[in-house]
Amino acid sequence: MTKMIDFQTDPSKYRHWRVDYEGDIATLYMDVDENGGLFEGYQLKLNSYDLGVDIELNDVVQRMRFEHPEVKVVVMKSGKEKVFCAGANIRMLGGASHAHKVNFCKFTNETRNTFEAAEADSGQKYIAAVKGACAGGGYELALACNYIMLTDDSSSNVSLPEVPLLAVLPGTGGLTRVTDKRKVRRDLADVFCSVEEGVKGKRAVDWRLVDEAVPNSKFDTVVAERARQFADASAAKAAKGITLGPLNRTIAEDGSVTYSLVEIAVDRAARRATITLHGPDRGVPASTDALVAEGDQSWMLRLVREFEDAILHLRLNEMELGLWVFRTQGDADAVLAHEAFMLANKDHWLANEILQLWKRTLKRVDVTSRSIATLVEHGSCFAGPLAELIWAGDRSYMMEDEFEGDNRPIATVRLSEGNFGTYPMGNDITRLQTRFLAEPEHVEALKGHIGEEIEADNARDLGLITYAFDDIDWDDEIRIFMEERASFSPDAMTGLEANIRFAGPETMETRIFGRLTAWQNWIFNRPNATGTEGALQRYGTGVRGDYNMQRV
Amino acid sequence: MTKMIDFQTDPSKYRHWRVDYEGDIATLYMDVDENGGLFEGYQLKLNSYDLGVDIELNDVVQRMRFEHPEVKVVVMKSGKEKVFCAGANIRMLGGASHAHKVNFCKFTNETRNTFEAAEADSGQKYIAAVKGACAGGGYELALACNYIMLTDDSSSNVSLPEVPLLAVLPGTGGLTRVTDKRKVRRDLADVFCSVEEGVKGKRAVDWRLVDEAVPNSKFDTVVAERARQFADASAAKAAKGITLGPLNRTIAEDGSVTYSLVEIAVDRAARRATITLHGPDRGVPASTDALVAEGDQSWMLRLVREFEDAILHLRLNEMELGLWVFRTQGDADAVLAHEAFMLANKDHWLANEILQLWKRTLKRVDVTSRSIATLVEHGSCFAGPLAELIWAGDRSYMMEDEFEGDNRPIATVRLSEGNFGTYPMGNDITRLQTRFLAEPEHVEALKGHIGEEIEADNARDLGLITYAFDDIDWDDEIRIFMEERASFSPDAMTGLEANIRFAGPETMETRIFGRLTAWQNWIFNRPNATGTEGALQRYGTGVRGDYNMQRV
Repeated sequence: MTKMIDFQTDPSKYRHWRVDYEGDIATLYMDVDENGGLFEGYQLKLNSYDLGVDIELNDVVQRMRFEHPEVKVVVMKSGKEKVFCAGANIRMLGGASHAHKVNFCKFTNETRNTFEAAEADSGQKYIAAVKGACAGGGYELALACNYIMLTDDSSSNVSLPEVPLLAVLPGTGGLTRVTDKRKVRRDLADVFCSVEEGVKGKRAVDWRLVDEAVPNSKFDTVVAERARQFADASAAKAAKGITLGPLNRTIAEDGSVTYSLVEIAVDRAARRATITLHGPDRGVPASTDALVAEGDQSWMLRLVREFEDAILHLRLNEMELGLWVFRTQGDADAVLAHEAFMLANKDHWLANEILQLWKRTLKRVDVTSRSIATLVEHGSCFAGPLAELIWAGDRSYMMEDEFEGDNRPIATVRLSEGNFGTYPMGNDITRLQTRFLAEPEHVEALKGHIGEEIEADNARDLGLITYAFDDIDWDDEIRIFMEERASFSPDAMTGLEANIRFAGPETMETRIFGRLTAWQNWIFNRPNATGTEGALQRYGTGVRGDYNMQRV
Repeated sequence: MTKMIDFQTDPSKYRHWRVDYEGDIATLYMDVDENGGLFEGYQLKLNSYDLGVDIELNDVVQRMRFEHPEVKVVVMKSGKEKVFCAGANIRMLGGASHAHKVNFCKFTNETRNTFEAAEADSGQKYIAAVKGACAGGGYELALACNYIMLTDDSSSNVSLPEVPLLAVLPGTGGLTRVTDKRKVRRDLADVFCSVEEGVKGKRAVDWRLVDEAVPNSKFDTVVAERARQFADASAAKAAKGITLGPLNRTIAEDGSVTYSLVEIAVDRAARRATITLHGPDRGVPASTDALVAEGDQSWMLRLVREFEDAILHLRLNEMELGLWVFRTQGDADAVLAHEAFMLANKDHWLANEILQLWKRTLKRVDVTSRSIATLVEHGSCFAGPLAELIWAGDRSYMMEDEFEGDNRPIATVRLSEGNFGTYPMGNDITRLQTRFLAEPEHVEALKGHIGEEIEADNARDLGLITYAFDDIDWDDEIRIFMEERASFSPDAMTGLEANIRFAGPETMETRIFGRLTAWQNWIFNRPNATGTEGALQRYGTGVRGDYNMQRV
């Protein structure tokens, strides 16, 4: 699996999904093309999915928000007769490297979080309308919808057969959503996760696994009624969307990538990717009408779309670049002006969507298993949303005083109102609140510094950066840090970062990425699941995995 | 490492710890005997520890509560000149099986939680008085103390060098306590966990790593002052303790174990241990004086000590017995009467300690990586504290109606006041609250059933058990369940149970056992740490581990 994985797609290229739009209700059909697998060696039978299927779903969900803001309810259905979705493709999982499995699960988790949150963030509620078997990752898709309807017949059911069949977990949020979203009683959850054949009809409702079981004969009618009810109960919005065009992206031979506002420079020997984000190359929109007219070209939207693509590209295609370095260059005042416009108009659907996409993209940074350092250099524009990158990183270095031969404006950090609530982390508090968990009063005090040009010594005193170095020390300190980081075990770094990035409260989201993912990763490394005699390899042979029975 | 590990010890056998008692202040010296390792093949240099050292510490902490209730402050010091504690012994870790590493970490975590909670539960505050190097697991010991004092000199420091040196995590609560107990800023935590040499003096205070740095010349004086202050600030108590005598335990050839009130029956072919707890064999103490006079022989204390030993024994010495079955036999009224006595006298130090030990022991059950089924049979006494076993297990089966030829009293479940707050789980809510997370009002309603003899049909309707079966179905249903359970992958079961047992709120404790442990277990399985070229094997050779640099 070494071919480059491209996260950019559009409806003209979909092989696995289609959407019917009818006013404020959209119907999303999963209809996986068996022969459309991202890699060789498996067929996507029974609406099973691989990363390629999920890349399309991610695109659907994103476009639903930007291109179809009129949609209030999305009904997720299967395009197949007898199956809703059989979950992640087992042969794909059996053949995939450990790293691919982990990355695949992370991306699918992010997509599910995105449509789960669409109701609260954008007034788009996802309903799962389940007919036929809904197994494993299929039920996890349904669980991420905020309402689950199940056909009450002899063949429709929901199930999480991973443990008995595959010796792995329902790891794409399944277990966490069963216990903490649906709040299924734990002994019933235990039974449910042990029975391959799943649970049907009324029992599925009684056990809280679905919201409603409806006889087959009435199913389509009741689903339509329910969609109508939910849409009517939602606040009015009839905006016309914008089009998300293809990104302007060039990938060079050496792996460096250039977008209109983002550059990735690659140093393979040092195992480092340097990601530079550029400040505004155009002015603040004059009005929300002007913002809509700019479409996908407004600075904040273009930048975040490019940045998101850069993150996904580096995660999946450049796994040996273990250190990401964030830089910015540009006019901090202009950054603040653009963000201020969005904040002032956050009741406008498009300004809201742009801010929401920033929130989601910054969350992708938080759960990225790479060491991240932020360099606050002269000429940089770490202000508002870009300042979040300082606190999303594992540590930061800031230039102090003038550097010889460097005419760029002196480095500053600029706080904005946005840093105090617009871009919460997965733990549902801001990066500043997480950073200053011991001193909530300091976060309050920082509000008094909104807009200030905070130079290095001050930024250090305020705790906003890790280190400030002057011209004499800068190069050496950065070099030593980077060399040191590149020498550490990647696994230990991943574990370290997963534990120290999310202090404070826990949410379903942090629990999925922190706890559930960690256990799944452990199991993915165990011979009982992935060894040559393990369950994933033996799946479909009729022979159970040959297990080492020691409990660990 | 196949010799039987015995968790029973007493001060006459200690090789690694000693305690000086002086009124309400105890000084606990760690002075590890290099040649006292539990297994062959390593020396416990520099106050490094293995499971044997921790078994003694666990015993110290337990006896401190029961035998020395007069103690209000415990000062933890090193008995060596230049080192506080070097952490877990690396050669031991390098040579240990995956299962032993995991079990070792679990037990040490439980011990640390126990002395950390001693302040709130028993008015015994632990202070770490650190002189010399305090590294890795050594600093984790200090972190679990509720006050850390560090000598401010050139050689004393605290450090977590696991990531750079060993390619594993500070996994015995270290990362979690750094971020969530000490609330160290995350970029400083990142720096701290990257520097082998650790942090000293004032910087350690500024970074919140320790509470106080004191010059060497004044260190002992200030430590004594601080201990005096904390002791004086604590509520008065001058009780005289009881003696915890050796347990009455017989281990048979086939591995079955008999205590005075607990039996373990072993079925190796079925990979099952059946643990039977017996109801009271003596009456309720007439008074708290009588309770003290009974010493370690009172029913509730004797039972819980035996049960705790049984749990620890099975966890470490019987790793292929993947299913634990809990049974009870005895007089439920008597169980309730004993518990009612303790609850009525919970302001008495010994009644409190007995209830606290029940709380801790039930928590051990919650984090045990075994599938647990509870059988509520005729003649059983699942009442009060014993009823907790129904909800601590993964599922439960209850006998319904009379069984032919069975003259024992009909099976009942009996709720007590204790089930509503005396034995919270690690998530800090009760097992009933966790069970009924979706219906908090149902927990309130259950209070109305305190004391009732709840038979099977009623227990099922109230959601207190999973299944009720009559004479016709009982044997087959139990057999099928047990066979099925024994056929599943042990790893998948461990991951499943770790995720579904702790719905609801998260605490530092659930985060340590759920998140941190899971990441550490993953890393323990990765070649970068434990492979032949990994860091644990190469430690001490001067050659860094040979790492696969892919980030996963």
